[in-house]
Amino acid sequence: MATYGGPMVNSGLEGVVAATTRLSHVDGERGELVIAGYQVGELAAHATFEETTWLLWHGELPSNAQLESFRATLAAARALAPATIALLRECARANLAPMDALRAAAGTISLRSEEPAVIVACFPTIVAAYWRLTKGMEPLAPRSDLGHAAGFLSMLNGEVVDPERVRGLETYLNTVVDHGLNASTFTARVITSTGSDLVSAVVGALGALKGPLHGGAPGPALDLVFEIGDAARAEPVLRAKIEAGEKLMGFGHRVYKVRDPRADVLAQAAERMFTRAGDMSLYTLARSVEATAIRLLEEYKPGRRLQTNVEFYTALLLHGLGLDVSLFTPAFAISRVSGWIAHALEQQRANRIIRPQSEYAGPLDRRWVPLSQRMEVEQRI
Amino acid sequence: MATYGGPMVNSGLEGVVAATTRLSHVDGERGELVIAGYQVGELAAHATFEETTWLLWHGELPSNAQLESFRATLAAARALAPATIALLRECARANLAPMDALRAAAGTISLRSEEPAVIVACFPTIVAAYWRLTKGMEPLAPRSDLGHAAGFLSMLNGEVVDPERVRGLETYLNTVVDHGLNASTFTARVITSTGSDLVSAVVGALGALKGPLHGGAPGPALDLVFEIGDAARAEPVLRAKIEAGEKLMGFGHRVYKVRDPRADVLAQAAERMFTRAGDMSLYTLARSVEATAIRLLEEYKPGRRLQTNVEFYTALLLHGLGLDVSLFTPAFAISRVSGWIAHALEQQRANRIIRPQSEYAGPLDRRWVPLSQRMEVEQRI
Repeated sequence: MATYGGPMVNSGLEGVVAATTRLSHVDGERGELVIAGYQVGELAAHATFEETTWLLWHGELPSNAQLESFRATLAAARALAPATIALLRECARANLAPMDALRAAAGTISLRSEEPAVIVACFPTIVAAYWRLTKGMEPLAPRSDLGHAAGFLSMLNGEVVDPERVRGLETYLNTVVDHGLNASTFTARVITSTGSDLVSAVVGALGALKGPLHGGAPGPALDLVFEIGDAARAEPVLRAKIEAGEKLMGFGHRVYKVRDPRADVLAQAAERMFTRAGDMSLYTLARSVEATAIRLLEEYKPGRRLQTNVEFYTALLLHGLGLDVSLFTPAFAISRVSGWIAHALEQQRANRIIRPQSEYAGPLDRRWVPLSQRMEVEQRI
Repeated sequence: MATYGGPMVNSGLEGVVAATTRLSHVDGERGELVIAGYQVGELAAHATFEETTWLLWHGELPSNAQLESFRATLAAARALAPATIALLRECARANLAPMDALRAAAGTISLRSEEPAVIVACFPTIVAAYWRLTKGMEPLAPRSDLGHAAGFLSMLNGEVVDPERVRGLETYLNTVVDHGLNASTFTARVITSTGSDLVSAVVGALGALKGPLHGGAPGPALDLVFEIGDAARAEPVLRAKIEAGEKLMGFGHRVYKVRDPRADVLAQAAERMFTRAGDMSLYTLARSVEATAIRLLEEYKPGRRLQTNVEFYTALLLHGLGLDVSLFTPAFAISRVSGWIAHALEQQRANRIIRPQSEYAGPLDRRWVPLSQRMEVEQRI
């Protein structure tokens, strides 16, 4: 058993290897991400999201027959229980943030099933329904004749969906589907390690993804580009921010010390999207902001190797796909849920309950004091 | 930074110290549990659950004025949102397990508030309402004139609650409120570490507690006593089980190598409960089963030091309190939610995102194969 020599506290668990996985490999020094054996660029550009999900759950790409069967299973499982829709209406009335509504609604999937395919199938329906409800529109029924990515886009606006937009979304979903033991994936594994079910694992993971230190800041990364507005303003605006001690949203990652490999994949997809739409101005501006930011970060923080991260091009691509900023983190969840489930299934196959230790730093040997003899103490919360 | 020398995988995180805490201290060798400075026996027998919760959240016992104010806050926050009740009705119709219903309903507390007191106040209401719905009875409205423990008992059957039963429940709730970095508490801290909210942390923790390797088996521990039925049968029945390789429910704990200190506290409370009820037969039988089990476990597994754990006397006490077996794990949650929130607040005060690493054991350098050229592979799930 690997242990520390004494009670050394590692509150972030950095460097602690908590699982063996066949799902993804993050090499922060080389800037590589391997998903079930494929470089992320190799997989993301080719696969449908159904193929990527199957790959993670089974370890191999599906055959034609397996893929057809899996697509049909997912397509048949998209409709939500009436209680889930009713809950989403209440969430909209209470003005809940989209990720809170998604977490609450995902918790009701148990009403229908705890099957992996059902959970994955419900996510786009929940996200699209809630987005429409918050805009004062009725949810649209899911279509069973479309794939997972196209189905999601169709439920947002009911439009016939352009195949290029579907390809763009599919590339995004494939790119962010899994990424080692990030906090939400780790949460899913800890919950699964107690012998709990997949809905519990996924709902816990959603709670972690929701946190601003994890689910990230694709909205703010785009805000930065809009705020700059003109390539000529990039340098003065960014200098002012860095000198004021502001963190530049979209740059820097705890793991990657070179460019996040996902940034390239998403940048290429974004470029295709904007080229097709015929207006490259935002894309060109973003590239210019990126180049300036990296140059200035190296100038002000030499050796820190702060690079563009996945959030920067996520924002650009999803914006190019026509998604509202409020849909950015939910879209991340629509993808990552396949990874969470893959990790939960992997955990089940070789399980050991995950139970670290804590170091106690509080008082000892206190004696009970009756209420009448107590002093008033300052409240901590 | 503390790291392993290489990619040594510690899949259970045993021996890894993942947090510093002032909340509880588990000494498995000495058989001690300290809760915010008090030995569990010292605290459990004296405190109301409101005092214990306050102690965990603020580090000190409350003054009279603070306690009155906290009791009033909790009492005023007990009613559920109509959407939560509606969801519980659907859960009952779908025959969900009580812990699934509690997890789903707890996820809707965000409709009302994310305040610690609101979350804790709602738990007994949810558990009691669901229990009544599954028995075909309408939920009872919470009473604001009762304490937390009495309020829960009153919502089950609407009876005037005997103070001795309230004291018994309160002792139970105090005893299991916190226990180091168990899997559900660790889940709450991981979720909180991303900057997420308390409802997300608590819902994730509920998912972990639900797992049979964690939330435990107080039902089966009682089943064992009922199955034996007569002290004279204890030895042959237990011998047969041990020789058949069956695990004896209620004995053995990953941390405690001597008697779980909580077992004594709960045994004493159970004894008072049964003494008062005037029928000691089940209690006497249980003590006899316990003594025989420990003797036989030492005979068959010498040196393993398998001792009575908290589940054994939890079962006896909660049964003595008149709680249905289906309420045992939910009652655990009614207590532990105060501990989860205390850990989440502690995590917030000195936060670092919890993100361990994984070791990749899968293939590398796979190349994309078009659908038409793929072989069919065996499905893993």
